[in-house]
Amino acid sequence: MTTAPSIAHRDLPTASGSLARARSLVAPALDEAVLRLSPELRSAVRHHLEGGGKFVRAGLVLLSAAAVGGDERSGVVGAVAIELVHNFSLVHDDIIDGDLERRHRPTVWAEYGIGQAIITGDALVTLALQLLLEEPTPPRVNAALRLAEATQEMIAGQAEDMASEQRSVLSVEECLHMETGKTGALLSCAASLGAVLAGAPAPSVDALADFGRHLGIAFQAVDDLLGIWGDPSVTGKPVGNDLRLHKKTLPVAVATANGAPEDLKTLLSEELSDGDVEAAARMLDECGAREQTVAIGESHLQAALGALERVPLELAATAELAAIAHYVTARDR
Amino acid sequence: MTTAPSIAHRDLPTASGSLARARSLVAPALDEAVLRLSPELRSAVRHHLEGGGKFVRAGLVLLSAAAVGGDERSGVVGAVAIELVHNFSLVHDDIIDGDLERRHRPTVWAEYGIGQAIITGDALVTLALQLLLEEPTPPRVNAALRLAEATQEMIAGQAEDMASEQRSVLSVEECLHMETGKTGALLSCAASLGAVLAGAPAPSVDALADFGRHLGIAFQAVDDLLGIWGDPSVTGKPVGNDLRLHKKTLPVAVATANGAPEDLKTLLSEELSDGDVEAAARMLDECGAREQTVAIGESHLQAALGALERVPLELAATAELAAIAHYVTARDR
Repeated sequence: MTTAPSIAHRDLPTASGSLARARSLVAPALDEAVLRLSPELRSAVRHHLEGGGKFVRAGLVLLSAAAVGGDERSGVVGAVAIELVHNFSLVHDDIIDGDLERRHRPTVWAEYGIGQAIITGDALVTLALQLLLEEPTPPRVNAALRLAEATQEMIAGQAEDMASEQRSVLSVEECLHMETGKTGALLSCAASLGAVLAGAPAPSVDALADFGRHLGIAFQAVDDLLGIWGDPSVTGKPVGNDLRLHKKTLPVAVATANGAPEDLKTLLSEELSDGDVEAAARMLDECGAREQTVAIGESHLQAALGALERVPLELAATAELAAIAHYVTARDR
Repeated sequence: MTTAPSIAHRDLPTASGSLARARSLVAPALDEAVLRLSPELRSAVRHHLEGGGKFVRAGLVLLSAAAVGGDERSGVVGAVAIELVHNFSLVHDDIIDGDLERRHRPTVWAEYGIGQAIITGDALVTLALQLLLEEPTPPRVNAALRLAEATQEMIAGQAEDMASEQRSVLSVEECLHMETGKTGALLSCAASLGAVLAGAPAPSVDALADFGRHLGIAFQAVDDLLGIWGDPSVTGKPVGNDLRLHKKTLPVAVATANGAPEDLKTLLSEELSDGDVEAAARMLDECGAREQTVAIGESHLQAALGALERVPLELAATAELAAIAHYVTARDR
């Protein structure tokens, strides 16, 4: 969660190296998988994929294979499947949120229409499971089931998020449950899928899955902090956007649990001017919500790193997993 | 395809008996499966399912198990999975088509909003594959792969259909390919999934799959006929609706292939008054498009029934499959 590298971090491999390697292994296989989609859908899929993406989930899959002593290449099919499911969720979420841009390009629905975006997402999630099931070895079948379960949990998290829009208050526990579903489920699956495909024993798979789940919550805590206090030139989102949209984020849930002052409660429910957004952010800071959210994120990052020490894993891959964990939870990203 | 029962048909079991049996076996299992979805999604799913549905696909799954000498109960998990995928496609298609009503009730998106309808469909298709993979016996894994493949083909058919809206002309071959994807793929999967789950040999599975695929095309031909010449009080759709919406249906493709008169071509591309719709329907009839579409449907129904005679199958179940085939292709439904 720290922005300046500490002495300990200086000895870690860089996340960018791991992610570049993941991209070079997985991107060609992903392109090949897309060729199997109906020609009518490929244009929308390529438009979406060409926007980029950091291959964090793909990197976690490959490293989890290496962490249990497997060949990273055995994880490629899982990495492709995870990226397909991740992109399915982005394409559908952009419709749901009404977002016109992603990665500085029009979203699929904005460019091709809602109908086309719906079936594009449908095709991606279906293809992910097809890929894993086509060679039905026990590890691949197990991987397919775990991916389907993670997808269902992610959809449930999205459903909780949408339902929360109708509510004025969300408890910290409810907020964490929702964020675990939306972000933690797929990261947990990614961080263990390579180990599953490599045929690792259950304790190793479970430890890696826990690493990914805690990392997802830590990531989401940082995302929520950046949505309120982030630098728009870095995040690419308007400042205070989450406050303006009355999103039920972790800092807001923490403030509510702390017994937020009436002024803040009012600001969290009304239409906000730029001055109001600044005032709300300042009041959230003053009531300790920012600090406590940082602490929640930090504790889940530590829990994630701790999970990696629970079982014997390959040291080099484990160091790379830790580097990715620090990278995705850095507050200057 | 005949409306009055012939002597041969009088000896067949009734489709309604088979479908009622399918409903009694599958509906409770379907309700139980829905309980596993996020509470936030159950209301929308139940709203959709309470609209009814004929359980045709569920019936085909159970009968295909019985046809290869298996227990119908062994097909129940497949029948639930097929119904989940079928309903996923209905929920998403209603958004895409902008349809406000289904079975005389508001569609999911009309009642709960587009975002909720998107994730409701996503949850249904994911649950279908989860159910089959949770007990990963080779037949169930094979069934899951076949269901994912059929789903992908169905999505491709929908993509072709949407792409055809931008075109003025569709060949008969292109139209049949699109309708095979949209309707034939899932019916083919349904009509063979019970046999797959019962561990039947490939020739039996293939014959049943061919039965379902041809049945899907025959069904679609009848659907296209009813969309132009059907009785609105029976079909529940406004008369000539497909012509008004310039849908690329089989009769229109046939007329175009026959070298439709210029008057008809104009009517097929312009905004239509009620009188225009009647005139277009009459001209389609006069150029032989209606008769030839009836013949195409009839030939695929015969091909479907012929597929059932290619391999040794249990007679009682085969007779019930034939009864369902006649039922879904009856022009007075």
